[in-house]
Amino acid sequence: MAQLQRITIASSQLQQEQIILTSEQQHYLCRVLRLREGDRFIAMDGMGKWWLAQLTGAQAKILEMLCVETELPVAITLIVALPKGNAFDEVVRNCTELGVANIAPVVSDRTLLHPSSQKLERWRRIAKESAEQSERAIVPAILEPVTFSCAVASTTATHRYICEARGNYPHLKTAIDGVPTKSQIAIAIGPEGGWTETEIENALHARFQPVSLGKRILRAVTAPIVALSLITAVYEV
Amino acid sequence: MAQLQRITIASSQLQQEQIILTSEQQHYLCRVLRLREGDRFIAMDGMGKWWLAQLTGAQAKILEMLCVETELPVAITLIVALPKGNAFDEVVRNCTELGVANIAPVVSDRTLLHPSSQKLERWRRIAKESAEQSERAIVPAILEPVTFSCAVASTTATHRYICEARGNYPHLKTAIDGVPTKSQIAIAIGPEGGWTETEIENALHARFQPVSLGKRILRAVTAPIVALSLITAVYEV
Repeated sequence: MAQLQRITIASSQLQQEQIILTSEQQHYLCRVLRLREGDRFIAMDGMGKWWLAQLTGAQAKILEMLCVETELPVAITLIVALPKGNAFDEVVRNCTELGVANIAPVVSDRTLLHPSSQKLERWRRIAKESAEQSERAIVPAILEPVTFSCAVASTTATHRYICEARGNYPHLKTAIDGVPTKSQIAIAIGPEGGWTETEIENALHARFQPVSLGKRILRAVTAPIVALSLITAVYEV
Repeated sequence: MAQLQRITIASSQLQQEQIILTSEQQHYLCRVLRLREGDRFIAMDGMGKWWLAQLTGAQAKILEMLCVETELPVAITLIVALPKGNAFDEVVRNCTELGVANIAPVVSDRTLLHPSSQKLERWRRIAKESAEQSERAIVPAILEPVTFSCAVASTTATHRYICEARGNYPHLKTAIDGVPTKSQIAIAIGPEGGWTETEIENALHARFQPVSLGKRILRAVTAPIVALSLITAVYEV
C-alpha cells in the first residue's frame, strides 16, 4: 500500500464514490506516473483523510478509506525567521517531512528577505509535495509572513518556546517533557545571528520559554529540523 | 569569546608560543575578516584543542589554551549512501554541526553517484568550515568512499544500527538508550528508495541492529540529521 503513488485532492473533487480529476491531475497520473485504466493510487485531502482510488478515465473510483497514523499527537507551529535566498524552501520541505502542523515565516529585525507573494505560493506547493512524499495525512499550513512581534503576540499555542543558541537555558527536550498529547506547541527559531534582545523580550512577555537545542551553534536552516526531531522522539517512542 | 573568529591550523604550524600563519590564513584574517595587528582570534587544531591567539604580523601569539566542551560524549560514525547531485555537501555540513565524529560515504546498490577525488576534498573542506562555524573542537573525518558491504564489514564500532524506513523496528532512541558514554556508535542510513534486501542482510550479519527514525518517510538527506538530533538529545540533556 505504501508503495502506491499519492496525490492531494480538494474536498470539492469528491462526489459520492468518485473523484473528479482535474486535467492537471489526469496529466500527472497518466503521463508522468504512467498509470493506466484500472491502476490504483492514493488520494489524500491534506486534512487527515486517505482513500484508495482506482483510475477510470477522467475520474477515479474510491475503493476504500485508508487509516493513516503518521501524524504527531501534538500540533506544532514553527515560527521561523526567514533565512537568506531560497533556504526557506528546505525548511518547509524538512519540517513537513518531520510532522509540523503550521509554519509561520516571520520577518525579524535581522531578516534580510522580504518575501513576495509568489514565495508563499511556492512554499505551499512544496509543503503539499513533501506531505505526499513523506506519507503524511495532513498538509501543513504555511501562514502569511508577518513580523516576529506580531507572530508572538497572536499565537494561541498553550506551550511556547523560543530557541536561543547562547545562554544557559534548559534543553528543549527537558522543557517539553510532560507536555500532554493533543497540546498546541509553538516553537520560535531565529535567523543567522540570532534574535535581538528586543525580540527575546517580546517573546518572554508573550510567555515564550527560552530553550537550548544543544551545545553546538546550529545554522538557522538546521535548527528547525533538530527541534522537530527532538519533539517527535518524545511523542513517538 | 564565542564571538571571536575561528580558524583551523595544522599542528606543524605551532612553534612554542607562536602560530606560523600560511599566506592563505594571513589573507583570510587580514583581508576577509579585516583583523588588525593585535586583534584576537581563535585557532583550533581540529583534534580537540582551541587557543586564544593574537595577530602579530605573519604570526600569531598564543595567549592561552581554551577549554571547549562542545563535543558529544560518544563517537558517532555515520555510514551514508551517497545521494544524487551535490546533496552530500549538505549532509556533511549538517552532520558536522550536529557533532558527528566520522562520516563514511558509501556506494550502495541504489547509489547513482560514483564520486570523484575532488568531491572528497570538497567534503573535507566543508567539514572544516562547518566545524569552525559551529564551534566544535574536532573536525570530523570524511572517510574514502567504499561499497556498503565493505563499510559494514570493516566497522569497529561497538554499537551498530541500520535505519530502515519500512518495517516495525524499534526507534533509534529506544535502541541507544543505555549505551554508555565513550562508546563508538555506527549508524547506517540508506539512499532514496532504501537499502536492498541483500544490503540489510549484510548489515545484520555484521551485527547491525535495524532501527526506525519515526513514522514518516524521510528523505535520504533529512534522515542523518534526525538520527544525530536524537542521539545528541540522549547525551546532552
